[in-house]
Amino acid sequence: MVLPQALEDLIEEFKKLPGVGRKTAERYAMHIINKYTEEEVNQLTKSLSDAKAKLHHCTTCGNLTDEEICSICKDEKRDLSTILVVENTKDVFSIEKGNEYHGLYHVLNGVLSPMEGMGPDDINLESLWKRVVNDKIKEIIIATSSTPEGETTALYIKRVLQETDILVSRIGYGVPVGLNLEYADDLTLSKAIENRKKI
Amino acid sequence: MVLPQALEDLIEEFKKLPGVGRKTAERYAMHIINKYTEEEVNQLTKSLSDAKAKLHHCTTCGNLTDEEICSICKDEKRDLSTILVVENTKDVFSIEKGNEYHGLYHVLNGVLSPMEGMGPDDINLESLWKRVVNDKIKEIIIATSSTPEGETTALYIKRVLQETDILVSRIGYGVPVGLNLEYADDLTLSKAIENRKKI
Repeated sequence: MVLPQALEDLIEEFKKLPGVGRKTAERYAMHIINKYTEEEVNQLTKSLSDAKAKLHHCTTCGNLTDEEICSICKDEKRDLSTILVVENTKDVFSIEKGNEYHGLYHVLNGVLSPMEGMGPDDINLESLWKRVVNDKIKEIIIATSSTPEGETTALYIKRVLQETDILVSRIGYGVPVGLNLEYADDLTLSKAIENRKKI
Repeated sequence: MVLPQALEDLIEEFKKLPGVGRKTAERYAMHIINKYTEEEVNQLTKSLSDAKAKLHHCTTCGNLTDEEICSICKDEKRDLSTILVVENTKDVFSIEKGNEYHGLYHVLNGVLSPMEGMGPDDINLESLWKRVVNDKIKEIIIATSSTPEGETTALYIKRVLQETDILVSRIGYGVPVGLNLEYADDLTLSKAIENRKKI
C-alpha cells in the first residue's frame, strides 16, 4: 500500500525530531489529521514559525531569548559576581527549576570536540572572556557534562582563566539524591567516594 | 525563570501530541530552534498545512486519501468480494505491511461506545451498508479491537448483516507468533486455547 504523498511527507517530517521513529511519527501524523481542526493546525504552524523567527541567543550569555539581553542577564537581583557555565539552554532550564542557584549563566551552545572539529571559536567562549574582563566576576562554576568533551571544555576554560584571580570550580559529582546505591554506575560511585566529605 | 513566550508557546503545542509530556516537548522545541534552518521550519509547516488540507476520507471505504477514492478501492486486482472492517486508518497500514490480505477495507473511524455517546450514526457504517447492497460482497471480516467497544461494534455489524447471505467473520485471537507463552496475558491465553486447531 502506497500512502498518500501528503501523509508520507508529514510522517517524514516528524521522523526528523529527536528520538522519533517511524511508528511514533505515524501516530503524530494521524493525530494531527484526525483530531486537529484547521485552526489548531494553523496555531501549531504559527508557533513553529514564530519560535524560529523570534528566538535567538542572548548577546551577553548565549541563552535563548526573544529580546536582545535575556531575562536572567537583565535581572539585577541576581548574584552578578558568579557565572555558571553550561552546554546549552536546556541545562539552564534544569538548574532554574531547582530554584537554588541565583547567579548568572553562560551558555556555550556546544562543547569542545576535536573529533567533530569543534574548536574554541566554534562555541560561545569569546563572549565569556569579555565578561571576565569587563564585569566583576568572582567565581566561574563549570557545569559541562562529565563526558570526555565536557571535561575537555572544563579544563580548557580553567587553563585560560588560571592567570586571573577568578575562582574556577566544577560542579560536584556523586550519587544522585534519593538513588539507591545499587542503581548507581561504577564511575559515579568512584566519583562519589573521591568527593567524600567529613560529617 | 520565565521562558521566552515564543518558546513556551511551541512547547505547549508539542505537548498536545499523543504521549508527549513537558520534557519531550521541550526537547522537540529546542531541537527545532537550534538545529533547523528557516527553510526546514518552512518545510515542516508546509507539510502540516498540506496534510490537513489535502487528506480526507475515501468516500467508499473511509480510508485516508488525497483523492476522492483511495488507492485500495481503485485497485481492480484486489479481491473485490471481501471487506475487512477496521477501526481506523492505522489498522489498514498495519495489515497492508503484512502483505497477506488482498481484499478491500472499510474504515469505521471510531467504534460504538454508548459511554462516550458514539452510536451507529457517529461512525462510518452507513457507507458499509451501501457497499453490502450495491457491490458483490461475499465475506466481511471484522477486525475491530478486542475491547468492549470493539466487540460491541463487531456484534452490531453481525446483527445487521445476519439477514443477508454474506459470511461475517471475526479475526482470530491467540498467542502472537514468536511470543514466549510466559509473556502472553491470561485473556489471550484462554482465547488461544478456545481457538485451538487440530493439527
